[in-house]
Amino acid sequence: MEIEREKALEYAKNNNQLFLEELITFSSIPSISTDPEYKTDVERTAQWVADKFSYLGLDNVRIFPTEGHSVVYAESLKAESAPTILIYGHYDVQPAEPLDKWESDPFKPQVREHNLYARGATDMKGQVAATIDAVEAIVRTGSLPINVKFIIEGEEEIGSPNLGKFIEDHKDLLACDFALNPDTGMVAPDLPTITYALRGLAYFEIRVYGPNQDLHSGVFGGTVHNPGQAICELVAGMHGENGRITLPDYYDKVQALTEKERAEIARLPKDEAWYLEHTGAPALWGEGEFSPDERTGGRPTLEVNGLYSGYIGEGGKTVLPAYAMAKISCRLVPDQHPDEVYKQLKQYMQENAPPTIRWEIIQMVGSPPSISDRNSPWAQAYLKAAETVWGVRPAFKREGGSVPVVTDFQQTLGVDVVNMGFGLPTDNMHGPNEKLELPNWYRGIDALIHFFFNLAEQNDR
Amino acid sequence: MEIEREKALEYAKNNNQLFLEELITFSSIPSISTDPEYKTDVERTAQWVADKFSYLGLDNVRIFPTEGHSVVYAESLKAESAPTILIYGHYDVQPAEPLDKWESDPFKPQVREHNLYARGATDMKGQVAATIDAVEAIVRTGSLPINVKFIIEGEEEIGSPNLGKFIEDHKDLLACDFALNPDTGMVAPDLPTITYALRGLAYFEIRVYGPNQDLHSGVFGGTVHNPGQAICELVAGMHGENGRITLPDYYDKVQALTEKERAEIARLPKDEAWYLEHTGAPALWGEGEFSPDERTGGRPTLEVNGLYSGYIGEGGKTVLPAYAMAKISCRLVPDQHPDEVYKQLKQYMQENAPPTIRWEIIQMVGSPPSISDRNSPWAQAYLKAAETVWGVRPAFKREGGSVPVVTDFQQTLGVDVVNMGFGLPTDNMHGPNEKLELPNWYRGIDALIHFFFNLAEQNDR
Repeated sequence: MEIEREKALEYAKNNNQLFLEELITFSSIPSISTDPEYKTDVERTAQWVADKFSYLGLDNVRIFPTEGHSVVYAESLKAESAPTILIYGHYDVQPAEPLDKWESDPFKPQVREHNLYARGATDMKGQVAATIDAVEAIVRTGSLPINVKFIIEGEEEIGSPNLGKFIEDHKDLLACDFALNPDTGMVAPDLPTITYALRGLAYFEIRVYGPNQDLHSGVFGGTVHNPGQAICELVAGMHGENGRITLPDYYDKVQALTEKERAEIARLPKDEAWYLEHTGAPALWGEGEFSPDERTGGRPTLEVNGLYSGYIGEGGKTVLPAYAMAKISCRLVPDQHPDEVYKQLKQYMQENAPPTIRWEIIQMVGSPPSISDRNSPWAQAYLKAAETVWGVRPAFKREGGSVPVVTDFQQTLGVDVVNMGFGLPTDNMHGPNEKLELPNWYRGIDALIHFFFNLAEQNDR
Repeated sequence: MEIEREKALEYAKNNNQLFLEELITFSSIPSISTDPEYKTDVERTAQWVADKFSYLGLDNVRIFPTEGHSVVYAESLKAESAPTILIYGHYDVQPAEPLDKWESDPFKPQVREHNLYARGATDMKGQVAATIDAVEAIVRTGSLPINVKFIIEGEEEIGSPNLGKFIEDHKDLLACDFALNPDTGMVAPDLPTITYALRGLAYFEIRVYGPNQDLHSGVFGGTVHNPGQAICELVAGMHGENGRITLPDYYDKVQALTEKERAEIARLPKDEAWYLEHTGAPALWGEGEFSPDERTGGRPTLEVNGLYSGYIGEGGKTVLPAYAMAKISCRLVPDQHPDEVYKQLKQYMQENAPPTIRWEIIQMVGSPPSISDRNSPWAQAYLKAAETVWGVRPAFKREGGSVPVVTDFQQTLGVDVVNMGFGLPTDNMHGPNEKLELPNWYRGIDALIHFFFNLAEQNDR
């Protein structure tokens, strides 16, 4: 299979410019999923992706409508007894605002030095294009040694509201050996990265009620428990010494980081100084016995996302508010579960809320944490591919954020997920002047070609 | 002087209907000071008051323009060697919204049963009219036995922004033996009330800053002190056991309530059940060793008036906010001072704010607490007058709110203030269907007539 591999790599090298031009076309369509005004552009982008699949000769190319934006599907299932990869991606992008901060039009992609500047260049049209280009390089010079199914959605930037149901409804169509999610990036230039764990999420709104209506703080102050104060007392009590969360049994199911994992995480380049520089906080905070990367990846959190009570406009109003609200979300690590955290929060409130107020908890979005096997054949195949291209063993990373689609793949399809990608921390994802570093991107296409051949060879052995 | 007193009382009795009709005219002008749209109406009301003074033959009737609404002044200084009373009032009213909750037009005063329904009927056109009517009853049947100066402003409902300066600029004009403030009410029907203490106010905004900008709570959660959490921790720590405020030295200058005062306060009809019913709170809160009325009148507070951080709209946003804010106000009792409380709050923050955040305190409005001598000749003269009319010894009350004009009179003019009035707790002041109970109002006019004669007689003795 070495000859096929070399031919494909050769094709990729010779067609760098063509790949770039196609990515420029792809990135020039403003597929902003958050803004209904761009609905036609979003659909046009889905069509562009589908056309590209058809042009490559993939089979069963479909544009599935959903209640929101469409899902594009395509497959190539000709490699008998070889593994089947489900390749995930999204063709929608974030809004480009603030427009005045862009040095070039976000939807007129421009190459400056080694970068392509465009909204979506790194998140994630560049990543989607890389997987398609790797397939192209192989099919134009031979035949795919593995089976692929593409599922490219148009609603990731609005939280993938219809994707879970789509996966549920199309389990058979999407059946595979594992899923590839190129929507997580590299922790540093020249350090390819496999993200093997994602934190889950449990989001709540706590509402505290005191008097029937806002009171005059002069007339009643001193006799009624102020709900603004009460919510402060309750929220303050949710953390103890050293940033520990005090919800009952909160850490019971938290998997301890192994020494091997801690050693992998220690290879990551984000030290305390990096966190200080990138947050601007006067000092770091949290569980001191863990490094910042361990805390964001391997430890659960409880954060105040929103806080409201009383009068918050200009100047002063001497109101004793009737109501206070806190939005609280927990990032979860294996084996925590949002429903269990809800019970823990409820128990905390039952044990700590005083009889001077009334309260309720609204349970909002939740997704369980996910973890992938670092030693799976899929992870090992990518590890080897990336090491071949970058000349360095990839880093294994735990990601602090949550990607619900990964949980859907794991739970609905029952498969493992390899999370990778070629975006860099400096790519200004979601911000102005989003960019894609082209030399890194070309290496990414090569890595994917190696990956596909590695998978096939592993299978042959 | 008994004949003059009887003649005046007789006049008042015979002219009840005339007084009511004039009050209806007075209350029908929408002198809403908060809304610039009503500026002409506010000025028209000032003119109506001035015309009334002229019609009664008072001297030196003036409409003083200010940077906002005008101050109306008039005087009668013919009672040689008798005391001079400065009678305060305001002719402006609150907006009438929500209009659909009114059973009759707020500016088409309507008598139903024993009540006059109109915006401003009790707060405080009825009170202003009562003082004028008492003077009318005396001057139409004889001559005033004391000297009076009226100062009727048009900006009380917007916080009297220009009155302090006006008093400062007109110290000589306003020179008097004491001031009468009929803008405090009766604690219950048939229980006339002297409010001898008002709490002061110290209002602050605390701002807490964490990271340079809002962060993704997944990517950074666990490494940075969440400002929303930090402000909760700081605010929660401002109260200790039993509702005690923990600012350093906060209680050092608080005058203890004397046993005699506590006995007076115990006469007031507002028990725990009253507070529960009127607040709707599930349970009362505060310093358990003091009764609710002692807590609102005689003890200082620290209240959260507003609380904000992060995302407070519908649904969830996984933001780790850069910023949090709390509006905090303290109600002060003698001998606390807003500037000292500012220092105490600052010291609390210095001692308790962690190095993981930045913070600042904005010092906003403040007014010192005030207390009047319950045994002053002025208070005793009113005590006797009210007892004559209602047949019951008036209650002495400490008021939880703050009335800056009282402090201005005390500090700028150096005089004591008698705070009273005939409004009832059930009058819906500031709410829809504001009303004035007419039989009580007529008794109030009589009480003022007695008051003026009592003052003159005291002086003669």
